[in-house]
Amino acid sequence: MIKFADRMNLLKGSAIRELLALANKPEILSFAGGMPAPELFPIDKIKAATEAVLNEQGEVALQYSSTNGFEHFRQQIADRMAQKLQIKTTADNILVTSGSQQGLDFSARVFVNPGDTIIIESPSYLGALNAFKACEPNFVAVPTDDNGMIMEELEKVLATDDKVKMIYVIPDFQNPSGRTWPMERREKFMEIVNKYEIPVIEDNPYGELRFEGEYLPALKSMDTKGLVVFLGTFSKIFAPGYRLGWVCADGEILKKYNFLAQAASLQPSTDAQLICSKFIDMFDLDEHVATIKANYAKRRDAMINTMEREFPPEAKFTHPNGGLFTWVELPDYIDTKVMADECLKQNVAYVPGEGFFPNGEQKNCLRLNYSKLNEEQIEKGMTILANVIKANLK
Amino acid sequence: MIKFADRMNLLKGSAIRELLALANKPEILSFAGGMPAPELFPIDKIKAATEAVLNEQGEVALQYSSTNGFEHFRQQIADRMAQKLQIKTTADNILVTSGSQQGLDFSARVFVNPGDTIIIESPSYLGALNAFKACEPNFVAVPTDDNGMIMEELEKVLATDDKVKMIYVIPDFQNPSGRTWPMERREKFMEIVNKYEIPVIEDNPYGELRFEGEYLPALKSMDTKGLVVFLGTFSKIFAPGYRLGWVCADGEILKKYNFLAQAASLQPSTDAQLICSKFIDMFDLDEHVATIKANYAKRRDAMINTMEREFPPEAKFTHPNGGLFTWVELPDYIDTKVMADECLKQNVAYVPGEGFFPNGEQKNCLRLNYSKLNEEQIEKGMTILANVIKANLK
Repeated sequence: MIKFADRMNLLKGSAIRELLALANKPEILSFAGGMPAPELFPIDKIKAATEAVLNEQGEVALQYSSTNGFEHFRQQIADRMAQKLQIKTTADNILVTSGSQQGLDFSARVFVNPGDTIIIESPSYLGALNAFKACEPNFVAVPTDDNGMIMEELEKVLATDDKVKMIYVIPDFQNPSGRTWPMERREKFMEIVNKYEIPVIEDNPYGELRFEGEYLPALKSMDTKGLVVFLGTFSKIFAPGYRLGWVCADGEILKKYNFLAQAASLQPSTDAQLICSKFIDMFDLDEHVATIKANYAKRRDAMINTMEREFPPEAKFTHPNGGLFTWVELPDYIDTKVMADECLKQNVAYVPGEGFFPNGEQKNCLRLNYSKLNEEQIEKGMTILANVIKANLK
Repeated sequence: MIKFADRMNLLKGSAIRELLALANKPEILSFAGGMPAPELFPIDKIKAATEAVLNEQGEVALQYSSTNGFEHFRQQIADRMAQKLQIKTTADNILVTSGSQQGLDFSARVFVNPGDTIIIESPSYLGALNAFKACEPNFVAVPTDDNGMIMEELEKVLATDDKVKMIYVIPDFQNPSGRTWPMERREKFMEIVNKYEIPVIEDNPYGELRFEGEYLPALKSMDTKGLVVFLGTFSKIFAPGYRLGWVCADGEILKKYNFLAQAASLQPSTDAQLICSKFIDMFDLDEHVATIKANYAKRRDAMINTMEREFPPEAKFTHPNGGLFTWVELPDYIDTKVMADECLKQNVAYVPGEGFFPNGEQKNCLRLNYSKLNEEQIEKGMTILANVIKANLK
C-alpha cells in the first residue's frame, strides 16, 4: 500500500479547474475562468519580438539561465513597479517566477509550518488557498466590507492568535470580490502590520487594470520594515501562456524564496523571459494595457448594466473599478453549487463562491468574470443567469 | 522578527548554481554545469515551429491551458517512451511539468513527511537532494559500484528501516557518476521493490543519449504494481530554456501529482508545449538527437582519452556509455572543494563531489561535464586539471 504525505490529504482538485474543463465547450457562455480576452493578445508584436530573440540570441534563449531571472528583465519589472504602483525597488529585489501561482506556493513554504495560522480576507482567492493548503495551515478569515478587510477584525485576530505567520491580501480589484481598499484602509493596515511585524503577501495581478479613478499606492510602497512580499504577474497585462510572474521582497526574505525556487524548478523559462523583455523594449506595453482596459471597462459595464436591469433585488453584487471580476451574494437559502448545474444546462457557467472560503462557510455567493466574453455574450449570459436566480427565489 | 518555516533551515543555495555564476566568464573552461551544447540547438527549426504555432493557434498558445498539458503533446511523449524506453503508457498517464526539477519537487511533496526516509544512490544528483530537502527527510544513501546501486545493501536498508517512503534512482548514465545499471540489476531492483511496495522515482534525463551498446528497458517498463514514477525531460534532447519535463505514473499517484501541480504553478507553459509539440510534428527529433549523440560521444572520447593520458594513476574515473558526465575519485586526502579554487585560478571549473552526498560524507570526488565544450577545449582544460591533481598528490 502506497502511503502519501499528510499534506496531500488537504489537496483536492480545484473547483475552478474542473469547472473550466466543463465550461470549455464552445456553446457555453463562461463567466467562470479568469482568462484574458484572447482576441486582444498582441500576437503580431509577440511574433516580431520572438523572431528578434531567436535571431539575436537564440543560443541564450534556449539554454538554462539563472534562478532569479535576467537582469535586464528584472530591471524592466522594477521600473514598471515604480511607474505604476509607486514601489521604489531594484532589480536585485525581484525574483522571476513561473506565474504568480508559483509565488503563492513559495510564500506558504517560506513562512508556514503545519498548524501555523495564515490570515486571509473572507472571501479570498481560491487558487491561493489551494496553494497554501499544501503547507497544512490553519486559515483565519477576516471579514470584509465594501472597502476590503475590516481592520478592527484583523487586529482582534493578531491580538489573540500567536501562531500567525503570514497575512495574504489582494488590495486591488480583489479576486473574487472585485473590491479595492481605499487609502486609509491601506495606511491602517500597515500600521497594524508594523506593530505585529507579520509578513504580508500582497497579491497584485490586477492593479494595472484600473478603469476609472486614481491609482492607489501598493502596500509594498508603504513598507518601511521590509515586511511586504509583493507578487506580480504578466498574465493579465501580457499573456498567461508564458507563465511569467515575479516576487518583489527585501533581502533575507527574497533569499529564502530564491533557495526555494532553485529546489522547486531551477528557474523560470529562459525563452519566455526574453520574449516578454524584448516586447517591452520594442513596443509600448502601456498602449497594450490601455487597449485591454478600454475593452474590459465596456464589458464590465455590460455586465453591471445587465445585472442592474435583470437581477432581482435579493441579489447583491459588487461594482468593481477595475480587474476581472464581480461577486454576487444571493439569499442564504440558495446553494450556488447546486444552481451552477442548472445554469450549465442552459449553457452558462460561473464559479460557485464556496471555494473562496477556506472552510466553505458561505454557499450563497458566486464569482463572475467579464474579461473573456464580448458585450453581447455577456448580456445574453447574464440574462439567463438572472432568470435562473429568479427561479431559485423563495 | 520574521520567522521562517522549519523546512527553510535545510535549504541553502545550490553549490552548482553558485559555481555556475562564477564559471560563466568567457575565459573559463567549465566542466561544471550540465548544459547542452548551445551551438547544436536546432534554432532554425525552432523558429519555423514557433512561427507555425503563432500563425495557426496564437490565441491558444498565449492563453491559460490545462494543468496536465495538451493531449496531443502528452500522446507524443507517450509514443516516444514506448519507442525509446519500452514503456507502454498512455497520454492519460502523463503530466507535463515545468522541467523535471518540478517533478523532483512534487515527488517528495507527494510521498514524504518530515523525518521520513528517502533512499538514494551514493552519490546522487545534487539538484534532487536539494529539492527533497524542502520536505525535511532523512536520507539513506545506498552504496554503489560500477553497475549502480548495490542490491544487497538496498535490501538491508528496506529490511530495517520502516520509515522509507520513496526510493530515488537514476539507472541510466547517472548524474553524477555516468554509470548505467545492467539488466540483471534492474530486475533484482524491481523484485525487491515489489516485495516492499515502496514508490520509486526513476529519473531519466539522459536515457536517450546512449553512444554505444543497446538501450536497456526503463524500470517503469518492468513495473507491474504501479510503483514507479518516471521523470522525463526535453532539456537534454531539445532545449532546457523551455522548461519542459514530464511525470509518467499510474492512476492514484498521478492524480496526487496533478493536485500538487495545480497548487504549485497551475500549469506548464502553454506556448512552450505547443512549440515543442509542433517541432516533433514538423521535424525529426530523432535526427536531432542523433546529431547531439554523435557530438557528445566525440567529446566524451576527448575527455576520457585526455584523462587516460594525463591523469596520474591515483585518479580513478568512470567510463560512461552515454549522458553528460564522468566522475573522478581522488585519494582521500584531497579536498576537491579546496582544489576547485586552484583550478578556477587557472580558468578551469568542475563541481566538487561533496554536494552529491547528502551528508557531505566524501570530499575527494568531482563531477565533469563533457557536453558543453568542444574537443579542443576539453583536451586543454583536462590537461590543466590533470596538472592540478598531480600537484595535489602527496
